[in-house]
Amino acid sequence: MKIALCQLNFKIADFEGNTNKIISAIKEAKSKEAEIAVFSELAVCGYPPLDMLENKDFIDKCEKAIKQISEYCYGIAAIVGSPVINTDEFGKKLYNSAIFIEEGKIKSTHKKSLLPSYDVFDEYRYFEPNKSWSTVNFKNENIAITICEDLWVNQPIENSFTRQKLYTCSPMDELMKFSPTLMINIASSPFSFNHAETRKTVLCENSKKYNLSLIYVNQIGANTELIFDGGSMAINNSGNVFHELPYFEESISIIETTTTEPLIKNNFSHNNSQIDKIYKALILGIRDYFNKVGFKKAILGLSGGIDSALVLVLAEQALGKENVHALLMPSRYSSQHSVSDALMLASNLGITYDLVSIEAAFSSFESSLIPVFAGKQPDITEENIQARVRGTLLMAYSNKFGNILLNTSNKSEAAVGYGTLYGDMAGGLSVIGDLYKTQVYQLANFINSHGEIIPRNTIIKPPSAELRPDQKDSDSLPEYDILDKILFAYIEQKTPLEEIVEQGFEKQIVEKVIKLVNTNEYKRFQTPPILRVSSKAFGFGRRMPLVAKY
Amino acid sequence: MKIALCQLNFKIADFEGNTNKIISAIKEAKSKEAEIAVFSELAVCGYPPLDMLENKDFIDKCEKAIKQISEYCYGIAAIVGSPVINTDEFGKKLYNSAIFIEEGKIKSTHKKSLLPSYDVFDEYRYFEPNKSWSTVNFKNENIAITICEDLWVNQPIENSFTRQKLYTCSPMDELMKFSPTLMINIASSPFSFNHAETRKTVLCENSKKYNLSLIYVNQIGANTELIFDGGSMAINNSGNVFHELPYFEESISIIETTTTEPLIKNNFSHNNSQIDKIYKALILGIRDYFNKVGFKKAILGLSGGIDSALVLVLAEQALGKENVHALLMPSRYSSQHSVSDALMLASNLGITYDLVSIEAAFSSFESSLIPVFAGKQPDITEENIQARVRGTLLMAYSNKFGNILLNTSNKSEAAVGYGTLYGDMAGGLSVIGDLYKTQVYQLANFINSHGEIIPRNTIIKPPSAELRPDQKDSDSLPEYDILDKILFAYIEQKTPLEEIVEQGFEKQIVEKVIKLVNTNEYKRFQTPPILRVSSKAFGFGRRMPLVAKY
Repeated sequence: MKIALCQLNFKIADFEGNTNKIISAIKEAKSKEAEIAVFSELAVCGYPPLDMLENKDFIDKCEKAIKQISEYCYGIAAIVGSPVINTDEFGKKLYNSAIFIEEGKIKSTHKKSLLPSYDVFDEYRYFEPNKSWSTVNFKNENIAITICEDLWVNQPIENSFTRQKLYTCSPMDELMKFSPTLMINIASSPFSFNHAETRKTVLCENSKKYNLSLIYVNQIGANTELIFDGGSMAINNSGNVFHELPYFEESISIIETTTTEPLIKNNFSHNNSQIDKIYKALILGIRDYFNKVGFKKAILGLSGGIDSALVLVLAEQALGKENVHALLMPSRYSSQHSVSDALMLASNLGITYDLVSIEAAFSSFESSLIPVFAGKQPDITEENIQARVRGTLLMAYSNKFGNILLNTSNKSEAAVGYGTLYGDMAGGLSVIGDLYKTQVYQLANFINSHGEIIPRNTIIKPPSAELRPDQKDSDSLPEYDILDKILFAYIEQKTPLEEIVEQGFEKQIVEKVIKLVNTNEYKRFQTPPILRVSSKAFGFGRRMPLVAKY
Repeated sequence: MKIALCQLNFKIADFEGNTNKIISAIKEAKSKEAEIAVFSELAVCGYPPLDMLENKDFIDKCEKAIKQISEYCYGIAAIVGSPVINTDEFGKKLYNSAIFIEEGKIKSTHKKSLLPSYDVFDEYRYFEPNKSWSTVNFKNENIAITICEDLWVNQPIENSFTRQKLYTCSPMDELMKFSPTLMINIASSPFSFNHAETRKTVLCENSKKYNLSLIYVNQIGANTELIFDGGSMAINNSGNVFHELPYFEESISIIETTTTEPLIKNNFSHNNSQIDKIYKALILGIRDYFNKVGFKKAILGLSGGIDSALVLVLAEQALGKENVHALLMPSRYSSQHSVSDALMLASNLGITYDLVSIEAAFSSFESSLIPVFAGKQPDITEENIQARVRGTLLMAYSNKFGNILLNTSNKSEAAVGYGTLYGDMAGGLSVIGDLYKTQVYQLANFINSHGEIIPRNTIIKPPSAELRPDQKDSDSLPEYDILDKILFAYIEQKTPLEEIVEQGFEKQIVEKVIKLVNTNEYKRFQTPPILRVSSKAFGFGRRMPLVAKY
């Protein structure tokens, strides 16, 4: 059977756009003699629709979209993801479903059984888990259709306190009772830098276990924090991938189930390094954020340091140099090289910029506060004022010209609260907020690997916020290669303090770092959405109480 | 049987504090001849612990706390809420449990079946739903123990698209197979202004349906956004409440199950108006936020308008006048009465204040930006700069003196995006962010009902942001009594646009309001935690995509 894998980029709630995209993919698939076109999970509405699922007119529009799509399903069948109403009196209102359409009609509806409700996932908030299964016969195949998590009966273990078997049933075990000849899984599985490999392993194990070929279709595109990487694939019943779609790109590809030998060669390379994937993911993340909210132009503060340099390069790649503007905002504490490094980068990229000193505004705050602060010594207050003057200038530019402010904070800073709320923590989108500082350096070096774009001095100079004379990050924080390892153990792996110390870190440092992470939850509560590239980003997928004994 | 209802205020993860509190309540109950002491849901760790439940040492500490508490359960039994490990190989790692302790040992563990996963609740993220039931025999009673949502088989319907029967099993139906003689339900049920009545109705209906007395114990206290109101009670088998504990206060009360006549008289009034409950809830919300994070002092910007006036009164009530400081920050556009109204309120309350003009800082921003903004007319940019200068001054005070900034935005403003990110939307805690403007007036009038505290002029003058000459809220927004009704229909009731228009509102206005709500999700994404007093507050319980077609 000829199957079209339709890996597309959907916009949440854009029913007209999504429906048109699905219909034209069906037409293309049909013109290439595909017998069935397969689309990703919740394709008609985009994933994740979140609380939009609680609106009646949203569900009505999903139903209408399926009807419209059905009209194009003659001579070709389609499998399309959509929420459908639970007609039973009991249980949640909706099922997360794969709808099988044939000859203009819904032939069968296949409902998701395993509803992920960890990290960024909240599916049990909206959906009833399915408890009855059946396959669908089409042409010479008896197809077992599942949705994303349904094949994740065995979860990869991230730390020793994580569960491998989160669910009490196995949808494929149930479906095997109907003797299927083929598995199809539709997914909306977001990117993290080590997830693609895990996913391939899990899917291939399913093929082997059930001795069936598996067609897997994932969406691509970014929806706020979540970046979907695609990587749709076809796996034969020996567990070997015989066809793969690209990462981070829309693609429609047709495979034949009767010839399921592993491909020797693909017309694109999947041997990407993790850092290359992160690079592509962040560019897609920026581009889709702007495209999907209907904005073109970005603004950011360029300090001469590595974080803002990296974000500027990524923004230029995503949006084009004509759509990115930089503000250079030196202060009395800025070093000479801050401005010159920033200018060199702007020139390397051909980016426009303005140079606005923060001295006048900073001084006027200092003067205004003299009577209020009478007798008090300068402290972190004055450092924060400088950061907030910069934030105010950037937001003023954003308001006046309609550029979205890109935030340039990294994950190490965010973790330990080394940043100013409403100052350098401001912005509409945090680009590298899920990259530890050591990864920021890796990505900067990756970008420079074919020639110097980010000035060498920006990469090699010691990191500094330059908010007081001769300040360095290392004055108040451990070196980043130590800090980042402790943070990874605590945040990603949830390793208890004592066990981190046992791994060979100084107890005093570990205690200090963990205390900083815990006491800065309130700052992270108010940060912009962060493009997620790791398995545990700050934001929606990590829900810590602000008020608690830490 | 003599039962002690122990309605206490727990701090999340404060195992030492919570355990000591539970132990001393057991001692007190025993000294008053109670035979069993009942505590609220997840009492040992506080509710909601969120992702802290994913940490091994957190669960270890819960187990240890139960052991410590058990040592005091001789001559008296106890029912204590705690997470417990799921020892089965399959399913989530934890159960949300009620532990029955007798003579120093765990006699039985009763696990929650119905796991709320809507609005602010995420229990399926952590817990496996229970599927096996049993009662526990103690003295002359056979007790059916359930946890909070377990009795909410029928959900109250908030709008026509909401489900009444969210769950596919009924724990009490199952428990009835064991012929219980008494029901005990332990809860952590947060306040909203119409929830207490609903709760009482649901619980009384359970008593009647099963013809059993019901003991209900809820926690009190605020944990970040969520305010728990207590209102624990004892209901006889006819569905009549025969004993009630107060709202918003810790209380240990003992009832006798053999004499279950409805009380004629309570030693406190429960005939509180909704506005009185909101008043008490917000004061508890502020007080617990400060107490539990270990801060004493608050700062806020006092504009002479009603929002900041109301927050100042609430803060003074919660923290004491010596712990609240106000900044008056007039601009070139401030009216004369702004300062005089603010001063009168500060004087009425005996609050200290500073007066800092924003003129100097505002002008210096204007001057610095002249080359960047060359040729551009003043617009909303300049209004936002003023708000951000104020935000920067308030945060500077906060940084210098350690006062937490209280945010003074209301729900109507937050809904339509009538506020400046990093300006008046800044703060550590939003006090009235879940009150529509019309409720703000109600609460102000309630506060003034025994004498003028908030100056009359503050209440009667037309609302204005005073960010340009002669500005009024009504220049850009519908009158608040119309706006708030549209917002309530759209946000709380999820009524589609057309149906709101059918309710008698102008189509153009409804369209404008809904568009404003939708296009301002990005602003609300970055607001401080909001004390929740309604059934649908902005924040954790309302999860809308930022990037979507609205």
